[in-house]
Amino acid sequence: MSDVFDQLAKTLEQRKSASADDSYVASLYQKGLNKILEKVGEEAVETIIAAKDARTSGDNSALISETADLWFHSLIMLSELGEHPDSVLKELERRFGLSGIEEKNSRTS
Amino acid sequence: MSDVFDQLAKTLEQRKSASADDSYVASLYQKGLNKILEKVGEEAVETIIAAKDARTSGDNSALISETADLWFHSLIMLSELGEHPDSVLKELERRFGLSGIEEKNSRTS
Amino acid sequence: MSDVFDQLAKTLEQRKSASADDSYVASLYQKGLNKILEKVGEEAVETIIAAKDARTSGDNSALISETADLWFHSLIMLSELGEHPDSVLKELERRFGLSGIEEKNSRTS
Amino acid sequence: MSDVFDQLAKTLEQRKSASADDSYVASLYQKGLNKILEKVGEEAVETIIAAKDARTSGDNSALISETADLWFHSLIMLSELGEHPDSVLKELERRFGLSGIEEKNSRTS
Repeated sequence: MSDVFDQLAKTLEQRKSASADDSYVASLYQKGLNKILEKVGEEAVETIIAAKDARTSGDNSALISETADLWFHSLIMLSELGEHPDSVLKELERRFGLSGIEEKNSRTS
Repeated sequence: MSDVFDQLAKTLEQRKSASADDSYVASLYQKGLNKILEKVGEEAVETIIAAKDARTSGDNSALISETADLWFHSLIMLSELGEHPDSVLKELERRFGLSGIEEKNSRTS
Repeated sequence: MSDVFDQLAKTLEQRKSASADDSYVASLYQKGLNKILEKVGEEAVETIIAAKDARTSGDNSALISETADLWFHSLIMLSELGEHPDSVLKELERRFGLSGIEEKNSRTS
Repeated sequence: MSDVFDQLAKTLEQRKSASADDSYVASLYQKGLNKILEKVGEEAVETIIAAKDARTSGDNSALISETADLWFHSLIMLSELGEHPDSVLKELERRFGLSGIEEKNSRTS
């Protein structure tokens, strides 16, 4: 459904058993849900500020980097709560009735 | 790279020429970047609150729904600023050296 | 300590027994803590966006209005959780050794 | 109007000429508006998380501390943009007719 998110989800699962000394993600898991959610909030704010600056400067590079941070930390949040990103992507498909997917599903059923 | 995000990006481009009366997304484009960014911020906060409630209740359904809202509005933000979600997904791949991509790249080079 | 915050805190207490039909604040109390916290988050984001625009335009009027919204909704949050704004103002005094406190401390030491 | 905010505003003005090595506030001014706004956003999120935990635990101490951080960083933001907190407090008075309340109080006392 999303190769990148699927691979990241697998990587995040593996980091759950890594040492917090060696891995940023492992150290976040160790600090717990509140710290992970603070990071989601921080990255959302940094994304918003980068978007304002992108509109003024015409340069989207910080916007891309901050959005990547936001999505990445939301994947850590899902992983911490035992949820796979596919649940979210399926919810988006369901809402928007994404045509290729629906067509494929109806053909296979 | 991500079927869902790619299809949503195409849908969002089409909504740029839709009537604001008929389409939530078209009405957001018409209200402009600040309104879109306010929605990104709102959905981030609702995601954080849903994550706290999910930890307490063990029920992830609101978490999934709010994360879908957050990702969806960040796609609208990217679209408003002329950026495709693939730029963000490629940045995540680059950072994490995701294996499938690396393998494919090494095969084609 | 703060006339405005003190008077607002009194007003907010009174609204707890008002009808949600007649009062915005009463309707927020009725919707509960999550809705109040969503408003705090929304107003923080709107304040940040207004600050970026103020830097560009030199016009602080939206910044003032959004900061007022942010402080007002944080007062509602405190009230909902049974806390008076003086607790927060006293914490700020304590941290920064503001003069009345300093004077008292120097007298007792 | 608010002794604490007024005194903090004076302190913040003084820190504008302090060394960034000696003062947290001076180092924030040196980093600029974006860094200050990121802090406002971070503290808003930490306040929201503390409020959720306060509801569960019945302990408001982290809520008070985080709200103090939020108000303090919004005072730094106002200072950075050349605005005094009295402008915000006057806006709150105007909205809630508190100057009317003061007048009434002074008449009855």
